[in-house]
Amino acid sequence: MYSVVMAGGSGTRFWPYSREHRPKQFLDITGNKPMIVETCERLRPVSSEDEIIIVLGKSHLKEAQRLFENSNIHILAEPVGRNTAPCIGLGALYARYSGCNGPIAFLPADHFIGNVPSFLKALETAAKEAEPGGIVTLGIVPSRPETGYGYIRRSNTGAGKPDNKVYPVSAFVEKPDLETALKYIQAGDYYWNAGIFVATEETILKEIEKYLPLLYEGLLEIEESLGKDTFENRLKRVYERLESISFDYGIMEKTKTDIYVLPCECGWSDVGSWSSLYDLKSKDHDDKGNLFDDDTILVDCENSYISGKSERLVACLGLKDCVIVDTNDALLVADINRSQDIRRIVEELKKIKREDLL
Amino acid sequence: MYSVVMAGGSGTRFWPYSREHRPKQFLDITGNKPMIVETCERLRPVSSEDEIIIVLGKSHLKEAQRLFENSNIHILAEPVGRNTAPCIGLGALYARYSGCNGPIAFLPADHFIGNVPSFLKALETAAKEAEPGGIVTLGIVPSRPETGYGYIRRSNTGAGKPDNKVYPVSAFVEKPDLETALKYIQAGDYYWNAGIFVATEETILKEIEKYLPLLYEGLLEIEESLGKDTFENRLKRVYERLESISFDYGIMEKTKTDIYVLPCECGWSDVGSWSSLYDLKSKDHDDKGNLFDDDTILVDCENSYISGKSERLVACLGLKDCVIVDTNDALLVADINRSQDIRRIVEELKKIKREDLL
Repeated sequence: MYSVVMAGGSGTRFWPYSREHRPKQFLDITGNKPMIVETCERLRPVSSEDEIIIVLGKSHLKEAQRLFENSNIHILAEPVGRNTAPCIGLGALYARYSGCNGPIAFLPADHFIGNVPSFLKALETAAKEAEPGGIVTLGIVPSRPETGYGYIRRSNTGAGKPDNKVYPVSAFVEKPDLETALKYIQAGDYYWNAGIFVATEETILKEIEKYLPLLYEGLLEIEESLGKDTFENRLKRVYERLESISFDYGIMEKTKTDIYVLPCECGWSDVGSWSSLYDLKSKDHDDKGNLFDDDTILVDCENSYISGKSERLVACLGLKDCVIVDTNDALLVADINRSQDIRRIVEELKKIKREDLL
Repeated sequence: MYSVVMAGGSGTRFWPYSREHRPKQFLDITGNKPMIVETCERLRPVSSEDEIIIVLGKSHLKEAQRLFENSNIHILAEPVGRNTAPCIGLGALYARYSGCNGPIAFLPADHFIGNVPSFLKALETAAKEAEPGGIVTLGIVPSRPETGYGYIRRSNTGAGKPDNKVYPVSAFVEKPDLETALKYIQAGDYYWNAGIFVATEETILKEIEKYLPLLYEGLLEIEESLGKDTFENRLKRVYERLESISFDYGIMEKTKTDIYVLPCECGWSDVGSWSSLYDLKSKDHDDKGNLFDDDTILVDCENSYISGKSERLVACLGLKDCVIVDTNDALLVADINRSQDIRRIVEELKKIKREDLL
């Protein structure tokens, strides 16, 4: 099966380690390799290299080409970001052009999967279920009343084997408040929306034709130039006039096509903040809940995350729930429970025109 | 009058800004100049340059010579540290050699004085009172139940003008616990012991002769070589065999000579930690109690002190009671209320043999 790896994120949440030129998917925060490389390697049992299509922003093309230098993975650079609908459309179009005639997994480049066999099994099941023309999303079985994710509610009656049931989606719901999230958990028929889904190239393009006709028209224009010298210019011309719109909003919430959810327990995390990265690496915490690099001295610290990305020694005394990220040109010290607000620091940097640190 | 500025401290409390080669008295933490320079400049209305004698450790001689390059201030380097008694003896000896025949102020090089006129007036009063042969210590009127200082208790009957009374000392007391410190404050006859006192060179040398005869013998040996090429070698030979002993323990607590305390409100601080430096600079705090340098971004922070001594931008989010000291080769992040425990980090550094950071 084909996979379209969506790597368009700009990512300020891991500032100061992430920068505009090096967003989260290019960071080695979850393992030894950049997340985008781990994402592609993880897919290899289900997609051969030339069945993987990365779609990313133009400014990250060179870095991606460097990372996948000796690989047959396809890399497409969007001239400008236009949210997920054009990205998914372009991926489906390019898959068809490359010979795809069946299901494609669409997935972000910057997520973590703890249980890969379980994840791949889910993709395969989803592919089978998507073959007749539906869209199958992975529904991550929630482990806590998370307020940072959207949820997918399933219908009561599922199809398939007991262990691997696929249910019609009853509703996509926005990020809830804590009280609502607790209700979702108790109800048992809500899942985290990981933004990972499987559909055939035919389904995707038909849906776009129906609900986003201008995008479809643009894709046909692009299609004419595929494999030709004119491709890059054509892509640019088309993208510049495209509407910026998400696949969820433009298609998922409107379509009358069958959308299914496949419950999945695969240790998924969107790794959305330093805090969630800290949680993810709980196996590496010391007995006081600290996570830290080599050149660190901790005295009486608890539940703190020290990420040293510079040559400097970092010494900490009496800290609690603290995240420290030390890079060569910028240092972050924050309450780890506030790490979703790091964008506010990035906003400040923009305000004071410190482009060198963005 | 002469002044002996004692600059022998090694100082780990301001790590990572202070290092073995650059102890607190050489830091510009209280103003624009190194504390030792500010201390000497502060004394100028009462002591001319050639009436000021700095006594410091050999390893800091060059730095001091550089700082006082165009000055007539005397600088004496102790070959090894032997606590305050030898330092004070050497200072008194050198003052006599330089022509001093009267009171000398003995004071640390690394203290802060907020109200200089009041301080100088106290020194002058103390000098007058010390002339007949007593030792007059400054007693800092306590502003809080500080547990980090020793206290001086005065007798009930003082001498002198109402505003400027000098009292016989009834007791020197060790650092108290909080309960005891509160009692001291309430009692009203206890003062902080700032380690600043005035006595004539004659009194000091007589006291040493009486209570520390071996030191006295050593001082006489040194005296013979003053102004000669043999001075440095002689000093080294004598110092190596000297006992390490404090003036408080060796003399003050034993002497039958009159010791007086002169109450003084001069905005004194021993600047003993990052926390006390933070308190000292309360005028520079922002409206949330933060103290910080230029290249700093603070979002939702309170009562925190960010001292950037590197080229790096420091960004903070959601911090409370935090001290951050960022230098080129080491970073400290600590609970500011724990800043007296920074020595524990220095101990760790010694343990892991990071001499480069000491």
